Amino acid sequence: MHIDTNEAASLLLQKDNILILTHKHPDGDTLGSGYALCRALLKLGKKARVVCSDSIPKKYDYMFKDLETLDFEPSFIVAVDVADTKLLGEDFEKLYGGNVDLCIDHHGSNIMYAKKTCLCEDDAAAAEIIYRIVCKLDVQIDMDIANCIYTGLSTDTGCFRYSNATANTHKIAAELIEAGAKSGDINCLMFESKKLSHLKLLKLSIDGMQMHFNNRCAVVTLTQKMFEESGTNENESEAISALARQVEGVLVGATMREKSDGTYKISVRTHAPVDAAEICANMNGGGHKRAAGCELNLPLEQSKEVLLNHIETAIKEACGE
Amino acid sequence: MHIDTNEAASLLLQKDNILILTHKHPDGDTLGSGYALCRALLKLGKKARVVCSDSIPKKYDYMFKDLETLDFEPSFIVAVDVADTKLLGEDFEKLYGGNVDLCIDHHGSNIMYAKKTCLCEDDAAAAEIIYRIVCKLDVQIDMDIANCIYTGLSTDTGCFRYSNATANTHKIAAELIEAGAKSGDINCLMFESKKLSHLKLLKLSIDGMQMHFNNRCAVVTLTQKMFEESGTNENESEAISALARQVEGVLVGATMREKSDGTYKISVRTHAPVDAAEICANMNGGGHKRAAGCELNLPLEQSKEVLLNHIETAIKEACGE
Repeated sequence: MHIDTNEAASLLLQKDNILILTHKHPDGDTLGSGYALCRALLKLGKKARVVCSDSIPKKYDYMFKDLETLDFEPSFIVAVDVADTKLLGEDFEKLYGGNVDLCIDHHGSNIMYAKKTCLCEDDAAAAEIIYRIVCKLDVQIDMDIANCIYTGLSTDTGCFRYSNATANTHKIAAELIEAGAKSGDINCLMFESKKLSHLKLLKLSIDGMQMHFNNRCAVVTLTQKMFEESGTNENESEAISALARQVEGVLVGATMREKSDGTYKISVRTHAPVDAAEICANMNGGGHKRAAGCELNLPLEQSKEVLLNHIETAIKEACGE
Repeated sequence: MHIDTNEAASLLLQKDNILILTHKHPDGDTLGSGYALCRALLKLGKKARVVCSDSIPKKYDYMFKDLETLDFEPSFIVAVDVADTKLLGEDFEKLYGGNVDLCIDHHGSNIMYAKKTCLCEDDAAAAEIIYRIVCKLDVQIDMDIANCIYTGLSTDTGCFRYSNATANTHKIAAELIEAGAKSGDINCLMFESKKLSHLKLLKLSIDGMQMHFNNRCAVVTLTQKMFEESGTNENESEAISALARQVEGVLVGATMREKSDGTYKISVRTHAPVDAAEICANMNGGGHKRAAGCELNLPLEQSKEVLLNHIETAIKEACGE
């Protein structure tokens, strides 16, 4: 059942012993939403705690390091930023998957698994919804709550870089900074810290980058050997997908990632007027205008040839050549 | 003479044939401020144009590509985001340096060269001041003006990442997005485009990065040979200074840049609790707590030894070892 933020706030005011679930591979939005809500409930004199199936990266410590973990039998279960029970992690899905009382989320893909769901798809971050709920709980937003909500906003918008950062996102950010959020310090922690292994993979990626079609196309190839050499893996290579399109003048940036079975997963990012989804549709893939993907069951050189042919056609068409 | 934004707006309302000067090596803030003001004046039926001593990088095209350059004899000269007449570039300094009627700026270092100066040091960007002035001119902020002002805000705050982005900066950003600013597209242009030569230098920098003191210190060395090999120069290496401190766990990131005379310029960036200014003060340099610099008239290996000694002492002291 869909409910709005007023109803979510009323519901929370009625309940106690509240367990807050975050999603696995926790990020700034699920944790920021969880700890902001937890802190607000504690300020109301309620018992509440946040749990996560995976260990929480050290950089998020500031959200909870002053909190003692309360031991209580949960009587109300809330999930924040969790679109699907699968995302709770195996153990928590078994334990709580069927018993979530309230889900607070901003993903259009939410499978509506909770008894009540407060879903706001237009919000850039679940933390935006939490902000409105905390205001309606009539809890004064202190520095700690502000830091948690700010983290959700900032991390889910690429630090206000993407177009999902709306006027409303900025208005909330302003309120949070006025409430004491340490925006500069938080952003430094979130965006200015890179693993050495990631930098090594970045180096190898730049090294092997190939330019085509008058430097309007850049292709990065990531092989299993490169993952080994840098101490990374396929999953960590996501961030590299942005690199090829970032080169000045490039209209199409493609990243070819070798999977453990030797076939290639292809990610295509474009600038207007080239359509990434169209390029990938030709190879049985799909996605959005500016970012799409596909898989090719071919060895590297053949995969690259097929890919480059489709890219060349798309660039020529888009540029009217 | 200092004036406030009310007085600046009144003054502009009285004048016509207005020439707007931006600083050399133009950035998003000087151009965004200049073109926003120019567009507002044009909407008031006045004649105005923006000039810059250097050519304007293509990525800023959207600010002015629909404007025709008006030819008129200037009768009122405004400088935006220009702290010193030297920054006008040699020719414009000669032509206009002594005749600037109004300077609108946010640099504390402004040398007060103009007849009247509207200086707001607390603003992250000159574009914030322009926003207030345009509002006081009673000009409706349209999409084009919003795009220009947004660019100034976004570029001078590292896309709202740094602590200079205040609650007020976010409030203005919200207004601009509501007025139609294409924030996502602008940020993509400003932050997602890198020269291939820069990526090559980045690659060489990662390649040569050395870790010290239990990975709490990273040192990047940039030599003249590396500038040559990548097709960059000393000036373009500024962006690399952030790299060393970005490595996870690093407290002190140092970048050693070889000057054309073979000596080394050193930039030190730290995370709390290590003080960069203290480290550099020991080598006759200075700066801020988190970013400082110095120069050593020694060959590379000796420079590095001196630098590392000071860094080791600082880390041990700060960490109570």
